[in-house]
Amino acid sequence: MTGKLYAVGIGPGDPELMTIKAVRILKQVPCIVVPKGREEGSSLALSIVQKILPLDGKEIVEAFFPMKKTMGGEREDLDHQWNETVDAVLNRLDRGTDAAFITIGDPGIYSTFFYLYDRLLERRPSLAIEIIPGISSINAAAARAGVYLGLGNERIAILPANYLESLQETLEKFDTVVLMKVNKVFDTVREILEKMDLAGNAVYVARTGMEDERIYNDIRTVGKEDLNYFSLMIVRKR
Amino acid sequence: MTGKLYAVGIGPGDPELMTIKAVRILKQVPCIVVPKGREEGSSLALSIVQKILPLDGKEIVEAFFPMKKTMGGEREDLDHQWNETVDAVLNRLDRGTDAAFITIGDPGIYSTFFYLYDRLLERRPSLAIEIIPGISSINAAAARAGVYLGLGNERIAILPANYLESLQETLEKFDTVVLMKVNKVFDTVREILEKMDLAGNAVYVARTGMEDERIYNDIRTVGKEDLNYFSLMIVRKR
Repeated sequence: MTGKLYAVGIGPGDPELMTIKAVRILKQVPCIVVPKGREEGSSLALSIVQKILPLDGKEIVEAFFPMKKTMGGEREDLDHQWNETVDAVLNRLDRGTDAAFITIGDPGIYSTFFYLYDRLLERRPSLAIEIIPGISSINAAAARAGVYLGLGNERIAILPANYLESLQETLEKFDTVVLMKVNKVFDTVREILEKMDLAGNAVYVARTGMEDERIYNDIRTVGKEDLNYFSLMIVRKR
Repeated sequence: MTGKLYAVGIGPGDPELMTIKAVRILKQVPCIVVPKGREEGSSLALSIVQKILPLDGKEIVEAFFPMKKTMGGEREDLDHQWNETVDAVLNRLDRGTDAAFITIGDPGIYSTFFYLYDRLLERRPSLAIEIIPGISSINAAAARAGVYLGLGNERIAILPANYLESLQETLEKFDTVVLMKVNKVFDTVREILEKMDLAGNAVYVARTGMEDERIYNDIRTVGKEDLNYFSLMIVRKR
């Protein structure tokens, strides 16, 4: 019997924001897979789980995620790297071992899991994979800041922060705009919001759900030192 | 000491998708508030919690949520109804009793909680309110259907389904479009998607997380009997 793979969203950082199902499955599986080689996150995901669940006796597989942009000659090398990662996961499943891939937040929201998912299903179309949703940083940040993302008939847009050129248009057409990983473009975003008279409607949340979380209800007070990889901004038109 | 109010997202229906924090707080508080008089949902929320947690000895407050559109003379009556609901909650808090308002999904995603929130803070600006995020039906439906909502630099739009007139434009500009409560406009949405050659890219999920959940990877097979208040559609451009 081939093992089953679970993709488990472990929430934004606070271990108590894991679901009962996530905890049950992580208790149950003998093997936990964490993506390796990302900017941040892999050891972080494991440390969140460890706060609530002893991992003694479990096999921890650090799977390398080659996320570099593909450019000409690198293509083959990238495929080779991916094959190694896929092999590492399939080896465990082929032994009949169930495994859980853990991901911060929700697997469906900008997680790396789906890069692996497609490649696994390419190799083994009938593989049993179950995705366990998690609290995303978006929902957690809104809760912590005391704002809602949508009410009634409102429209919500979620943008990676590199869509600066269409930000103004999106702000005009949507009631709520969530800007992910806003740290790299913070100053430009703030300028656009000030120009549109919306700077007072924005909240900035850094490292939501983590111990050093910070919430800014006035983005004019955010300094360079407050910018962080795990950061997002919620702009509400009303 | 005034009691504290928690707004607790209990997830989409599967009791195991409650967070550890939600369960801890619901165990802890002596009083649980559920919205009454909504299309569906209040008794449902309570029945989800009851599957995982005995409610014996807790006070259950069914708070009336007057959600009718305000039209001229009805305004005063509506305010009166809201005041009664706000009073019911404040009475418990004033006694020093902590209370938890429970809501299906996530409090920040189209939940009625924020109607109450604003009115409570109007009356008691210093009231202690903590919002506990929950798994929204959007994240749960994506997980169950095996699709992601966003990857890399993709843009996500979430629309209540009554924005038909701008649906085509939104589909052109976003990578993923989530249509909430799509049951009422299903045929028109399907027509628009077929015209845009996107019908094959849509999944329809009815009653996600509930026992009678149904997932349709081909929306052409969805019949009238499959349309449901708790339903949504995810359209992925790729």
